[in-house]
Amino acid sequence: MNKRKRSPLRGRPIIAVTPGDPGGVGPEITARFFARSRPLASTALIVGAYPVLEPWLRRYRAAAHVILAHPRTPGIESFVSDAAEVVRNLVAPPRAPRVIVLDTGCRDRFTVGRDTPGGGRHSGWALDIACRLSSAGLVEGIVTGPVSKNSLDLGGYPYAGHTEFLSRFFSAPNCQMVMVYRDFRVIPLTRHIPLKDVSAAITEGKLVTALRVVSEALERDFGVKRPRLAVAGLNPHAGDGGVTGSEEREIIAPAIRRARRLGLRVTGPIPGDAIFQDARSGTFDAFIAMYHDQGLIPFKMVSRRRGVNVTVGLPIVRTSVDHGTAYDVAGKGVASTDSMREAYRLAETLVRRRRKRVG
Amino acid sequence: MNKRKRSPLRGRPIIAVTPGDPGGVGPEITARFFARSRPLASTALIVGAYPVLEPWLRRYRAAAHVILAHPRTPGIESFVSDAAEVVRNLVAPPRAPRVIVLDTGCRDRFTVGRDTPGGGRHSGWALDIACRLSSAGLVEGIVTGPVSKNSLDLGGYPYAGHTEFLSRFFSAPNCQMVMVYRDFRVIPLTRHIPLKDVSAAITEGKLVTALRVVSEALERDFGVKRPRLAVAGLNPHAGDGGVTGSEEREIIAPAIRRARRLGLRVTGPIPGDAIFQDARSGTFDAFIAMYHDQGLIPFKMVSRRRGVNVTVGLPIVRTSVDHGTAYDVAGKGVASTDSMREAYRLAETLVRRRRKRVG
Repeated sequence: MNKRKRSPLRGRPIIAVTPGDPGGVGPEITARFFARSRPLASTALIVGAYPVLEPWLRRYRAAAHVILAHPRTPGIESFVSDAAEVVRNLVAPPRAPRVIVLDTGCRDRFTVGRDTPGGGRHSGWALDIACRLSSAGLVEGIVTGPVSKNSLDLGGYPYAGHTEFLSRFFSAPNCQMVMVYRDFRVIPLTRHIPLKDVSAAITEGKLVTALRVVSEALERDFGVKRPRLAVAGLNPHAGDGGVTGSEEREIIAPAIRRARRLGLRVTGPIPGDAIFQDARSGTFDAFIAMYHDQGLIPFKMVSRRRGVNVTVGLPIVRTSVDHGTAYDVAGKGVASTDSMREAYRLAETLVRRRRKRVG
Repeated sequence: MNKRKRSPLRGRPIIAVTPGDPGGVGPEITARFFARSRPLASTALIVGAYPVLEPWLRRYRAAAHVILAHPRTPGIESFVSDAAEVVRNLVAPPRAPRVIVLDTGCRDRFTVGRDTPGGGRHSGWALDIACRLSSAGLVEGIVTGPVSKNSLDLGGYPYAGHTEFLSRFFSAPNCQMVMVYRDFRVIPLTRHIPLKDVSAAITEGKLVTALRVVSEALERDFGVKRPRLAVAGLNPHAGDGGVTGSEEREIIAPAIRRARRLGLRVTGPIPGDAIFQDARSGTFDAFIAMYHDQGLIPFKMVSRRRGVNVTVGLPIVRTSVDHGTAYDVAGKGVASTDSMREAYRLAETLVRRRRKRVG
């Protein structure tokens, strides 16, 4: 019997939501979003520490079914299988709750507005549980709130970010981070590394793989037929014929040629300051940036806090808010839920498309 | 007698225009702009090869007074002093021509749509003449069309761009390139160098100097009182507390502290993807980017081909179109004159402000 068949694939899909670092704005925007807006076509399973979420759920009068956990169950495997069983029973009846809070049992101390080891343990532990719940076939998507790399590191989760954790957990080294705002999609080929290390981190193989993975994901998950991809240059004026850098000739252009031989529709390398000038003209379905700021500067200018971070190339759907912990406003109840809303809605859409494709 | 007194400082100012590489769109946008729009408060002195400009002047029925030159006068000094004399006599009467073409005499061969040594000699030679005409006190500003670094190099002018030429010519090592679109101003601290060399090129001294020069220029030339400057970080999330790079802590933050001790209003380092998100909110008068694309990507997205490149910290006013030679459309008469118009208008404004300050 196929594992997938045992999961409630035919019913309302379950989407896990991890609020992120408890010192940041994640818990409040999660509670506020679900208090004011119900999942449209799914059941939301908020995976977090109940004591962290409770004040916000109360403040916003959120209607949620809470599954309480014993403080930090020793084995994560037994915790996950127990929780999965409870959730399965809960979502079985026709009038199942739309929002469920699964208390992770984490009671580590943290400080609002700061990186702390406890904050990292909260967010890392919740993410681990959510991933395992998806491996167990319970949840079909994960929506993540903002974490702090530094907290994660202090708390014993040495990952540069969510994407790196997910890539390792699902043994998906080729998964890609795609920033999505409506039909504007940006993929940073390299992510959270120092700018001076970017050149060495760009290889022909990595770029070809990214183009392939992104192209497949656009076609399958986003419903874009024969996606047109644009690749930015690394250097000013894309190297200006070699005068301001050689990576375009030596790495990027050869990778584009190889991708084209694979049947992909790829244009570039196009100078960074030219490629995004008409980003919204509809000429391209996705833009490959060589490094973080090259992609995120234009993306955030266009999306204006309504962007979603999607990881493609994973066995599950994963979306995330596109902002950080916002420590400066954390705990004040003023952070915008826009990105959380967009992330959750997009996860619902992507899960629906995946189901159609499978079934 | 002061040299400045001999120049026609009290009359209509003369602004030199160098159309740029003859293989690019420079000649056609120069001719078209002056055919359709007259200088408002200045005399435009177009410094270029007449055979290159003539077909375009004719096509657009531009009214211009042409000063023909003998083919490539042997000594540039005598050429310049002769030309200055002719122009001075020409602009003396009350009904002086508004647009004058000064034939540089260059007859080198070039190809439209391509980098050529001849193209580089045309544009380098014209720029040299324009600079000398300003040293001679004849012109108070220079507006430059697009050149090709590669052509310049092939033609014996080994400069990364206009700014580098002007910096050397006027012995102004601290001059800065400022991209201007209305009240949105962006300064790339490093310019046309490979991305992998950016980190090593950023020094505390260079950043402090840039902040000082830009602040002074905003106050004096742009009329901004106590300008507020924002400085971008170099690395993703401005180094994320050291996790994704150390230049913020070791170079950028110390430079900002030093600049503040000099009395400048400076904020930063702010992550690249955050600093430009609300670029047009009016919070800052200028943005310092660490490298070309970090500044030019947001600038071009906002300015949409109406941006102007201004060099501040020079003894003269210098503005430029913010686009390249556009070889793909060169010779077709379809290139937009928007940036040339903005560059010329801004030069007029800046010359007027400088005169007020002096007189």
